[in-house]
Amino acid sequence: VWSPHVEQGNPTPGRELADISTPALILDLDVLEKNIARMQNLVSGSGLKLRPHAKTHKSLEVARRQLSAGAVGVTVGTLGEAEVFADGGVDDIFVAYPLVVAGEKARRLRALHERVSLRVGVDSAEGARTLAAATAGTAPLDVLVECDSGERRSGVPASQAAELAVAAAREGLHVAGVFTHGGHGYGPTPVRAEAGADELRVLAEAASELQRAGLEPTVLSAGATPTVAYSSAPPVTEQRPGTYVFNDGNQLAFSACDAADIALTVLTTVISDAAVPGQVIVDAGSKAIAREPNELIPGLGSLRELPGSNVHNVNDYHGFVQLSGAPDVCIGDRLHVVPNHVCPVVNLFERYYVVRRGEIVDIWPIEARAKSQ
Amino acid sequence: VWSPHVEQGNPTPGRELADISTPALILDLDVLEKNIARMQNLVSGSGLKLRPHAKTHKSLEVARRQLSAGAVGVTVGTLGEAEVFADGGVDDIFVAYPLVVAGEKARRLRALHERVSLRVGVDSAEGARTLAAATAGTAPLDVLVECDSGERRSGVPASQAAELAVAAAREGLHVAGVFTHGGHGYGPTPVRAEAGADELRVLAEAASELQRAGLEPTVLSAGATPTVAYSSAPPVTEQRPGTYVFNDGNQLAFSACDAADIALTVLTTVISDAAVPGQVIVDAGSKAIAREPNELIPGLGSLRELPGSNVHNVNDYHGFVQLSGAPDVCIGDRLHVVPNHVCPVVNLFERYYVVRRGEIVDIWPIEARAKSQ
Repeated sequence: VWSPHVEQGNPTPGRELADISTPALILDLDVLEKNIARMQNLVSGSGLKLRPHAKTHKSLEVARRQLSAGAVGVTVGTLGEAEVFADGGVDDIFVAYPLVVAGEKARRLRALHERVSLRVGVDSAEGARTLAAATAGTAPLDVLVECDSGERRSGVPASQAAELAVAAAREGLHVAGVFTHGGHGYGPTPVRAEAGADELRVLAEAASELQRAGLEPTVLSAGATPTVAYSSAPPVTEQRPGTYVFNDGNQLAFSACDAADIALTVLTTVISDAAVPGQVIVDAGSKAIAREPNELIPGLGSLRELPGSNVHNVNDYHGFVQLSGAPDVCIGDRLHVVPNHVCPVVNLFERYYVVRRGEIVDIWPIEARAKSQ
Repeated sequence: VWSPHVEQGNPTPGRELADISTPALILDLDVLEKNIARMQNLVSGSGLKLRPHAKTHKSLEVARRQLSAGAVGVTVGTLGEAEVFADGGVDDIFVAYPLVVAGEKARRLRALHERVSLRVGVDSAEGARTLAAATAGTAPLDVLVECDSGERRSGVPASQAAELAVAAAREGLHVAGVFTHGGHGYGPTPVRAEAGADELRVLAEAASELQRAGLEPTVLSAGATPTVAYSSAPPVTEQRPGTYVFNDGNQLAFSACDAADIALTVLTTVISDAAVPGQVIVDAGSKAIAREPNELIPGLGSLRELPGSNVHNVNDYHGFVQLSGAPDVCIGDRLHVVPNHVCPVVNLFERYYVVRRGEIVDIWPIEARAKSQ
């Protein structure tokens, strides 16, 4: 369906990396392409379908490249994101979130259901009722029952999946299967492996329960970048990783990627060194790199040009950097920050500057930015 | 110059608070008006000028109300914010940030300088050189020398202000005065009082140094919501608080406002209670309430309808609430979150739902959202 975007078709004459205003998102196209291909190969090679979580990139152009590489559709976290991708031509969308709808959001859900192939998460009978009411009189809405595999966030225990599925079916929804998110796998390799095994076990158990209740679950969907390598086996049918497309400091800390796999950085400028000896201030603050500490690594973002230094604190437009050693850093210098957690970072920007071998080759809008509703 | 916006001129027929999609920003107009009037009275009553920091609200409509109440102009943190307010008709703007410009940003600075009354911060000779180069051949750009009064973020010590001011003047800039930000005053009342006194002392000392060097500083600008009450005295001429316009959990924790002074909340929906007994999940996560812990108060945002409970953790679209006691909370319930730090929260949304006595009376766009460059 998708043909790769021709980047020369959207030229940016005279636009040099040194010319753009900071802070700015810099997306390395070579790394992006490698990340997309690697994950597609891993998941396809295991006989599973890949449905990448688009909350990471929020970009039609990135989604098109994932679909072109073999993804079966996209995953999103909000109805607003789903609408953006539907508007952009993506016609197979899973909202991996236990939506509870009323008022305007109920009308929006119904409208979207009537124009694309839509699946929605459910983890309560009350939620199921709101979904059924919103789509009454249309073709039954596909839902997946969310199961908790250890993250302790949302989702029912596998042992309660059938009861909820039966209740949802009674409301008039079509229960297509079950899903889980191994979010407790954001940790070192043994933690990742165990969380992946949890996803496998819980999905298998929940699907069996549904079958015993007379339902036919066809989708068993797992998903989290750190656990994909450990949960890609039958009976799981689908993976929904998001962060792999760019990677970030967290994935690096978890050994879920290498430094060469980081596709996205925040370009920032050193704007002050006046207040504290050994400290410089960069123009990437909480509104550019987000405040996302990780107990495994120091600070909120590492600095590619300054190994051993990091952005250790942020105000709205100020990033605090305690210099390690006595590096040659001057006011006006530009540095690349690798943020700890890339998803909330992307949500803060309007566009990607897309580079190949250090040259800007394109600018892509972030269409689903701020679509949290 | 400004006439108050006529909210009836922008009706939202049939738009009920219960109908809107969550998470959503809810702005209480009565409280907003009280906050604007109170701060204007405090600052004007001390004989100072008020130049509110617009990074908090990022809204032309809110800025117009501040100007209509007597503010002399706006303060911003980025050139992108300045451009938005200039486009909206605000013609007196201070970028309270040590801008360092090159390339596109240098051209943008020059263009803005040529169309509005613009002041820019400076805290290094290198920065001053970039500002002078960007505006060469135009009327001299007004700059204020940033002094550190104890925040230890940016700004030179008062003792070095004159040297920097002379260097800036030599570059061809017009040194209009000095500014500081008592950011170290984000704390309990004694901390606020001391930081306010620091602002006063440092600005007075820096201005004296400039005078001794033959310069004529006419602007001595202080600013931070928690310190305004303690630094509004001669020789300070101007205050730049931002957060006061909405207030937030931090200001409440610092006793810099009362609960009745909170104008902005995040409306959220309870969407899950399946995974952990006593825990509910709301649809306001890090992309709706920001991750801004405050060591004085638990959690990331308090819940108006659930005293004693708070959002204690966030993922992108999930807010974790550990219920205190056994309140009657159901899936689908709507709750108002008072976020700890309102500035990064506003930056995450596209619009304010403006309410008076619980009824939506208007919708205002957040024009300067994501303008961090």
